[in-house]
Amino acid sequence: MKANKTNQERYAAGIDTLQTMVGDHGVSMIKQIGEFFPDFGHTLVAFGFGDLYSRDILDLKQREMITITSLITQGATEQLPFHLHAGLNVGLKPEEILEIILHCGGYAGFPKACGALDVARKVFNERGIDLTNK
Amino acid sequence: MKANKTNQERYAAGIDTLQTMVGDHGVSMIKQIGEFFPDFGHTLVAFGFGDLYSRDILDLKQREMITITSLITQGATEQLPFHLHAGLNVGLKPEEILEIILHCGGYAGFPKACGALDVARKVFNERGIDLTNK
Amino acid sequence: MKANKTNQERYAAGIDTLQTMVGDHGVSMIKQIGEFFPDFGHTLVAFGFGDLYSRDILDLKQREMITITSLITQGATEQLPFHLHAGLNVGLKPEEILEIILHCGGYAGFPKACGALDVARKVFNERGIDLTNK
Amino acid sequence: MKANKTNQERYAAGIDTLQTMVGDHGVSMIKQIGEFFPDFGHTLVAFGFGDLYSRDILDLKQREMITITSLITQGATEQLPFHLHAGLNVGLKPEEILEIILHCGGYAGFPKACGALDVARKVFNERGIDLTNK
Amino acid sequence: MKANKTNQERYAAGIDTLQTMVGDHGVSMIKQIGEFFPDFGHTLVAFGFGDLYSRDILDLKQREMITITSLITQGATEQLPFHLHAGLNVGLKPEEILEIILHCGGYAGFPKACGALDVARKVFNERGIDLTNK
Amino acid sequence: MKANKTNQERYAAGIDTLQTMVGDHGVSMIKQIGEFFPDFGHTLVAFGFGDLYSRDILDLKQREMITITSLITQGATEQLPFHLHAGLNVGLKPEEILEIILHCGGYAGFPKACGALDVARKVFNERGIDLTNK
Repeated sequence: MKANKTNQERYAAGIDTLQTMVGDHGVSMIKQIGEFFPDFGHTLVAFGFGDLYSRDILDLKQREMITITSLITQGATEQLPFHLHAGLNVGLKPEEILEIILHCGGYAGFPKACGALDVARKVFNERGIDLTNK
Repeated sequence: MKANKTNQERYAAGIDTLQTMVGDHGVSMIKQIGEFFPDFGHTLVAFGFGDLYSRDILDLKQREMITITSLITQGATEQLPFHLHAGLNVGLKPEEILEIILHCGGYAGFPKACGALDVARKVFNERGIDLTNK
Repeated sequence: MKANKTNQERYAAGIDTLQTMVGDHGVSMIKQIGEFFPDFGHTLVAFGFGDLYSRDILDLKQREMITITSLITQGATEQLPFHLHAGLNVGLKPEEILEIILHCGGYAGFPKACGALDVARKVFNERGIDLTNK
Repeated sequence: MKANKTNQERYAAGIDTLQTMVGDHGVSMIKQIGEFFPDFGHTLVAFGFGDLYSRDILDLKQREMITITSLITQGATEQLPFHLHAGLNVGLKPEEILEIILHCGGYAGFPKACGALDVARKVFNERGIDLTNK
Repeated sequence: MKANKTNQERYAAGIDTLQTMVGDHGVSMIKQIGEFFPDFGHTLVAFGFGDLYSRDILDLKQREMITITSLITQGATEQLPFHLHAGLNVGLKPEEILEIILHCGGYAGFPKACGALDVARKVFNERGIDLTNK
Repeated sequence: MKANKTNQERYAAGIDTLQTMVGDHGVSMIKQIGEFFPDFGHTLVAFGFGDLYSRDILDLKQREMITITSLITQGATEQLPFHLHAGLNVGLKPEEILEIILHCGGYAGFPKACGALDVARKVFNERGIDLTNK
């Protein structure tokens, strides 16, 4: 972590990364959180997207694989749509998302996997993704 | 899933994949589980390593990223050494494992990340991996 | 696990057991999952209901006690209605389900038990089960 | 625990404490649980609010800090509104609740904190609490 | 819950049930907890074993199935030996315990099931239970 | 969050707060983590102890109540000794820690509370705290 990087710069880096991941709509969703509780919004952007997602070694696609797996494992289904959209935006293929969910069936149990699959189906529908004819 | 594949073939596929992931020593660890409770051992190999790990779409390195993330998130630290070794064997770099742990700090909380880091340190020591001079 | 049993036979065994547990309506719910993601649907039926639920040693009523307890403990309330219906269909009495929930209060904490009780109330209402005059 | 205290007295103590925490409306919510499953309702009141909340050493405000933290950590968001209201009633300031949520971001992960923040926003809206001009 | 039952009577009922479940050795383990923190020890016995385990509708064997499932699902492996012993004492067969663990593999994930199997192996060894020749 | 605060200043604030909480010995434990994985060590100190613990609105004693509750609820017993020591150092009384554990029994379930009590007993012993004659 660069010693003289400021909070403002960390936040700006986070917004940049968010823009790549979820575009204007996603950025404005995160900014709304900051309107309700500014320090939480700052932390989410500066720490979550600035410090973590903006790092190298793992790319954004790999980071979304990790995030999606963690959300499935802890049953945080209400946070999944944001990250399924983000994952698809940064290069995760729909088939890869389904594969993560199936793999998590064995590691986090099928109830969590079934819950995640239900969310994926809704997100795929919203985006007009149809895998059934493949 | 191929309709006429037998349990024996699923098991054989699982042993093959396990061999690639953890070598003779790891295979014999899994086989010991089967000596205590044969149907559990069969399921672990045929379903876990045969049906899941042997699928395509995600490669073994990506699957270990997912498994390691799920283990960290659920606090299953006692199963981490097996999968950290497996991950390193199939191409995860030590730096990538550390990066998964740091990313999980934000998503699963720092207590789980600290617990995982402690296990990683022991596994890296066992394998003579030293990142401190990098 | 019988060595020469095929995936098709495992799937057929799973559908048979599901039919006993949840009837036509439940079977068609599970089949819908398979329309969205065939390999997940196959695994859910062949592994979950074929390999696990179809085994002996524990009967279907005992297996639903275990499943319901696991769902309550992990807070997977959205999967509870399916298994409360299944449990009632295979012989769990409404009073036994309530008793599982109360017992889980002590072991998984009262927030999880309260969440489960709310689901049980809805399922009992749907089935016209009224325990209040007992 | 006083040796000769009866269940009736434990229950009465619980109702008294509940009255202080959530008033008539909250008490009647808890009593509805008791109409569906009397022994669960008794236990919730006599054990939860009589034995635990009515003890000294920690006051009600501190106990709600603990309860809210535990609910956030286990992702039991559907039980949060009751305890956010209770916390505010017994002296937790809205800013303190937000602070608990932010602190939990680091300890239980940001997905759980984001889920809790969403609930807090709704509860604050219901109560006409507006922190944005501060 | 009987209205005029006293704490002392609830505690006595809990000790009786504990005696049936785990004998002198187990009772003295629980009593040691009470020496360190008397009100916790009282609650554990009076509430856990007096109020919950001593109820009817489910018998002790069924209650241990539920407890063991909840412990596996939450990864509370350090509490498993006590309840595996208790379960075996009240009529759970070793084969049934293994079956619970395998079933939990599908519902709580295989890492939790593997952790539980390891504990079961140790408990079975302590008791001289050998299933390998069956 | 102050816009022009640098990472170095956040880290320094974290070390100051850590010094208050756990003294030289605790600071050196955290620094050892930084020797193994510098960016993780930086984040733990700058974010966890600098950004979160150093904030006002809640004092250090309240923050340790929250942290300890979160650790108990997620079963992260191996991180408890550090925070039980920290809590005692910043003003939590031993009786208050026990009370948190008992309260968590009702909210996170007794297995987690029993696990935490066992850790508390060891930490109290190390510090020569004896509550049995009170």
